[in-house]
Amino acid sequence: MHAFAVPDLPEVRPGDSLADLVAERTDLADGDVVCVASTVVSKAEGRTASLSDYPAGPRAREIASRLGEITGDYKDPRFAQAVLEESVEVLMEAPFLLTETVFGHVGVNAGIDRSNTGDADFLLLPRDPTGSAERIREGLDADVAVVVTDTSGRPFRHGQRGVALGWAGIPASRDWRGETDRDGHELAVTVESVVDELAATANLVSGEGDAGTPVVVVRDFEFGDHDGSEELYREVADDFVRQALRGWEYARD
Amino acid sequence: MHAFAVPDLPEVRPGDSLADLVAERTDLADGDVVCVASTVVSKAEGRTASLSDYPAGPRAREIASRLGEITGDYKDPRFAQAVLEESVEVLMEAPFLLTETVFGHVGVNAGIDRSNTGDADFLLLPRDPTGSAERIREGLDADVAVVVTDTSGRPFRHGQRGVALGWAGIPASRDWRGETDRDGHELAVTVESVVDELAATANLVSGEGDAGTPVVVVRDFEFGDHDGSEELYREVADDFVRQALRGWEYARD
Repeated sequence: MHAFAVPDLPEVRPGDSLADLVAERTDLADGDVVCVASTVVSKAEGRTASLSDYPAGPRAREIASRLGEITGDYKDPRFAQAVLEESVEVLMEAPFLLTETVFGHVGVNAGIDRSNTGDADFLLLPRDPTGSAERIREGLDADVAVVVTDTSGRPFRHGQRGVALGWAGIPASRDWRGETDRDGHELAVTVESVVDELAATANLVSGEGDAGTPVVVVRDFEFGDHDGSEELYREVADDFVRQALRGWEYARD
Repeated sequence: MHAFAVPDLPEVRPGDSLADLVAERTDLADGDVVCVASTVVSKAEGRTASLSDYPAGPRAREIASRLGEITGDYKDPRFAQAVLEESVEVLMEAPFLLTETVFGHVGVNAGIDRSNTGDADFLLLPRDPTGSAERIREGLDADVAVVVTDTSGRPFRHGQRGVALGWAGIPASRDWRGETDRDGHELAVTVESVVDELAATANLVSGEGDAGTPVVVVRDFEFGDHDGSEELYREVADDFVRQALRGWEYARD
């Protein structure tokens, strides 16, 4: 398996075709997985926004005021309003704002990015990253898969890692259930989230910032003879951490 | 960046030198990252165990009885005893047993594996995976990094993905703090868990089960000019999900 960055991508602007920008710079082969950072997807889709677009309601003002007290860093209530409008549920209001986005991803500030924004105040995540992945895939001549990626923190472990937000041309996961080890025992690993692992691989190669290369091609990944699943985001009924967070309240020492 | 499996590894037995087994089958280059599944590390270190080694105390009996009721699948209390003895804290007793291992990893059943065990009842995780990684690294001639890997589920997202349990010759993460994007804004991504992303990459290649290849080499990964950190496992004070789980109790509908 190989992973390489697509070179010399220009600054992406609203209306740009990411498929064309990629195809002009690299020879894709059937079976390639094209991993595209959500930042450039958002830019191509014109998902920049301004604080003035989000007059703050009472809940946003309350959240921002509390976060200002806790972090010592004033958080504009209009930013909190933008996070709320991108979200279907608030999992944690403090000491940071953790929500579920409209498409199911759980992330801090609904994944809204305040770097990489050019002249705008911030960059929203794509509204429907799987739809974005499908459109990019349809624009490419080779029979590839497309994964729209982001980076995200997580409980239990420090640091961020690449995750998938949307995908097309590949199932979200592959299923090892029912398969056995060398001794005939059923495997402990059941369902492997390949799109997240592909996003992690891409993030090792892509870098960030000035020298960042937001599109990485993973070549010669073999999905193998497995059933696939399109499920990536857990439902609350199935997610005990989300249930625990519903009953939890941040308290300063 | 390339990733390839080390071919034709034999069944690993207690006392085997994993460094020798790998070096005999592949030409390693300086800078390679050798990702080794914890199962074969545990086998080489003789970390197989039998239920009869773990006479169950009252807490293990209580946990096993409750899990038996909930899951309908009887869980031997001696297995629960083994999990407790590998752990420093129980995060969740039901509907599955989630603990922090003695070396800091949070996993279901303390990562104890009931497949891939040969004649033994189960396979414990390495006692000190970073020590294991250091020993493997010292046994190799090339100047490589070694990552001991496992697969693990997570909140918010379905499926398992590769994670690092121990590492040597490479920092756990790289630090992007203070770096700026093309527009001069500070980056949102701060610390990237490269060892977890390397483990995820390896898991895409390694497969599982009969055809599993437990050692994967990642070549031409560039860490780049960044500060590194050796921290991977969060402390409770810094982990709000762990705090929330402390106050949470599973209740059946």
